[in-house]
Formats: sequence, structure tokens, C-alpha cells
Amino acid sequence: MNIVILGSGNVAAVLGRKFKAAGHKILQVISRNASAASELAYEWDTESANYPSIAKPNADIYIIAVSDDAIDDVINNIKLPKQIVAHTAASVSKDILKTVTDHYGVFYPLQSLHKEDADLPETPIFFDGSDEMTKKKLEALANSISPQHVTHASDDARSKLHVAAVFVNNFTNHLYALAENYCKREGIDFNELLPLIDETASRIKDISPSRSQTGPAIRHDEETIEKHLAILNAYPDLKKVYEFLTASIKGFKA
Amino acid sequence: MNIVILGSGNVAAVLGRKFKAAGHKILQVISRNASAASELAYEWDTESANYPSIAKPNADIYIIAVSDDAIDDVINNIKLPKQIVAHTAASVSKDILKTVTDHYGVFYPLQSLHKEDADLPETPIFFDGSDEMTKKKLEALANSISPQHVTHASDDARSKLHVAAVFVNNFTNHLYALAENYCKREGIDFNELLPLIDETASRIKDISPSRSQTGPAIRHDEETIEKHLAILNAYPDLKKVYEFLTASIKGFKA
Repeated sequence: MNIVILGSGNVAAVLGRKFKAAGHKILQVISRNASAASELAYEWDTESANYPSIAKPNADIYIIAVSDDAIDDVINNIKLPKQIVAHTAASVSKDILKTVTDHYGVFYPLQSLHKEDADLPETPIFFDGSDEMTKKKLEALANSISPQHVTHASDDARSKLHVAAVFVNNFTNHLYALAENYCKREGIDFNELLPLIDETASRIKDISPSRSQTGPAIRHDEETIEKHLAILNAYPDLKKVYEFLTASIKGFKA
Repeated sequence: MNIVILGSGNVAAVLGRKFKAAGHKILQVISRNASAASELAYEWDTESANYPSIAKPNADIYIIAVSDDAIDDVINNIKLPKQIVAHTAASVSKDILKTVTDHYGVFYPLQSLHKEDADLPETPIFFDGSDEMTKKKLEALANSISPQHVTHASDDARSKLHVAAVFVNNFTNHLYALAENYCKREGIDFNELLPLIDETASRIKDISPSRSQTGPAIRHDEETIEKHLAILNAYPDLKKVYEFLTASIKGFKA
């Protein structure tokens, strides 16, 4: 397919690379960030532009991959009434695109995407569309870059999915950051924790996390918990997190 | 080396396998759990016994790999005054072994070990010993199964390490469990989150988690946070976790 990408950030860059790798043609990349746009255009051997209003009119699909607060600016500046236009945002309704075209939808990648990464991670896509034709086209595009993981999801389902993603991605990363910070102050090499972090993430492929919970909290091992809290007296913020999540584990019912 | 393993649980099984794979000989495996002991003895082509008191006296190293609350029972039933004896517990002092031998220490694997796993995960070892000879021997044993990740750690350092492990392993797994549970109730396929979980864990090898934090909390994206909290009204426990960790991210300073 011929694709125009609006945006030049992480999602735009990684999706664009996946489209290229799947054999699609990027007709144009458009971004207010002129240097980022021309870098991607160079990488993809295509043209760049800096204003949504000068989007080429002849693409099969237009992907708006900009941050939530920049969507309005793009939408207010394009009219493509006969084309398929989709945004990539988890928590923005597809209907925001109503004024742009009759054929609008969503193309949401459930992944943490970073343009500086050399590898393209496996990326489940959740699509939606205003009509059957739009849905079919977006589904086909999704299948071309992520054949195992393509799901239809309404606005509501996508928002709910985003909540789950916040737990396993943002909150988990925060726990890593807290641990890293603590290790730094204690002179512990954080790298020694990486095998454990890896194993924790990979074993849930085989065993449900509800059934594989370990540690002092689930064992109600108060002696160890007290020992840990004593250590954490030097780290009041960390101590609060420890107490809170220990209580949450104790009270958890699958 | 010739090794006697006391214990037949996850740590005993996986360490024993690693010792075997590194070319050591398991002289005997001892556990109150007779069937688990004989299963491991069969696997390792060695003998099993059910009482610590009948440990063979001629091993180079005795590894006590039992749960924290079972250590006393083992210790009260062995006397090996000239041998090297080490336990594997994070939060138990090495001095608990004083009554057993003059050459005692710790052999702590910083990993989530499960006997049913087919693969043996990379496992950093933190060792300690009552004297130089004991330290050297335990360090050599550690190097034979985990050449990249062997560190000396005092009782105090090991306890502090354990706190970090609780954050990145137990607490992280709890977030996975909460998300899984939520997905089940919302009809979301939890497997679709696995690529994101994987990516979140692996990218911290390249980028510090403090610098790669993403999501509505770090962006102070109150609109999305409100949307998420509205969804979580149906899940009061999850909502509390969301509010708590969102505040923790907002207040975090590396």
C-alpha cells in the first residue's frame, strides 16, 4: 500500500520502518519537526513536508502518529474526505477524525516504541474503523506487520487495554527505576538484577503470574518484611511503596 | 568438587543441576521430603537420604537449600566441624551455621528458580564465608556455574540486595497478576500484553529505567489519568494501586 505518515516521533518512526519492511511504500512523511521529518524521509527514500495541509492526496492510508495533544493540530489542517485516515492513540476516540474523512479509524500499536532501537519489537495492533471497508484495509495493514497479533478494538476496549498496559509497562518500569536508584545509593550493581528481571518477565509465558507469586509478602513472612522495612527506613518513599505493594499482595485474590 | 545438597525444593534442584552441568559430583541429596529427594537423586545418579544427621562426611561442600523456616531443623541435626557448609538464604545471617562447622558461609542465588523449568536461567551468585579458605572455595564453586556474575556480599549487603529483588521480582510479578486478573474480567487476552512486558524488561539493558519512563503519569497527562481512573471505578483495589503508583512516578527523583 501507499502510506503517508503524519508524525516523526517514536511511533511514527517504528511503524514506518515496519511498513517499509513489509513492502509498503511511504509516500510522504509530514511533521512540524522539520529535521526529524527529513531524517525519516531520507531513511525511507521518500519526501518530507512540514504542514499537514500539504499531504499528498493519493495514498491508500494516512497514519497520524503524533502525541495526544498534537492530534487536534493535525486534524484541523487536513481534509481527505475520500481517504482512509487513522490515528495511533490509545485513549483518543476514533470519532475525532470525523471532520477529516468519511473513512476514519484507529491503528493502535500495543508496544513501547523507541526510534533509536535497532530492532523492531513484536507489536500487537488493535484496529478500528468507521465502516467495513476502512476496517478491512486497516486490518490488512496490521496483518502485514504483525500477523500473529491483530485484534479489533472499540474506543472503549482500547482505553481498557491502555490501563492494562500502564500496569505492565509504566508501573513496572517505575519499580525498575526505584530499584536502580536504591542500588546506586547502596553501591549495588543494578546489572546483577537484570537476569532476575528477565526471568520474571519471561516465566509468565509459561505460568500465570497469579500462580507464580513468590516472596515474603505472599508467604506472610513477617520477619523478613520487618527486616526489609528497617533497611528502607533510610528511603521513606521506597518504604511506602514496599508497604503498599506488600499489603496489595497479601490482599490479592485471583 | 563433591557436593552434598540438603533440600529438595526449587533452589536445591536448580543449583544441583547447575553443579552437575559444571562437572561437579553430587554425593548425596538429603530432604525430609523423601519422594522429592529420591527423584533428584535418580536424576543426578546419586544417593538420597531423609535425615540431615546421616549426611556423608566426605564432601567438599555442603549446600543447605531449604526454606528459611526449615534451616534450624537442618542445622540442629548436623555436625560437620571440618567441612564447608553454606546456606542459600537471602535474609539469614551466615552465623547461624556457627554451631555446625568452623567453615561456614553463604551461597545466595539472585534468581527466581523453579524446578519444573527446562532451562537453567543465568543466576548471579553472592557468596560469603567465615574465613578465607571458605570464601575461596565458595567463590570457585560460584564461578563454575555463573562465571560472569559472582560477587562477595556480607549479611548486610545480601539483605539489601534482597530488598531490590523484591521490587523487581515480587512486586513486578504482582503488577502482572493484577493486569492479568483485570484482563480476564474485561475479556482482554492477556497474551497480547506479553510483547510489551518483554520489551519493558529488555530495554533497561540499554537505557536506564529512570530515563525511559513513559506513560500518562510522567507526562502529567491528567485527562488520560482521569479516563483510566473512571474505568477502574469497577476495580477498587486496582484503582488504589493506579493512584498510588501514579503519585509515586510523579514524585520520583532519580
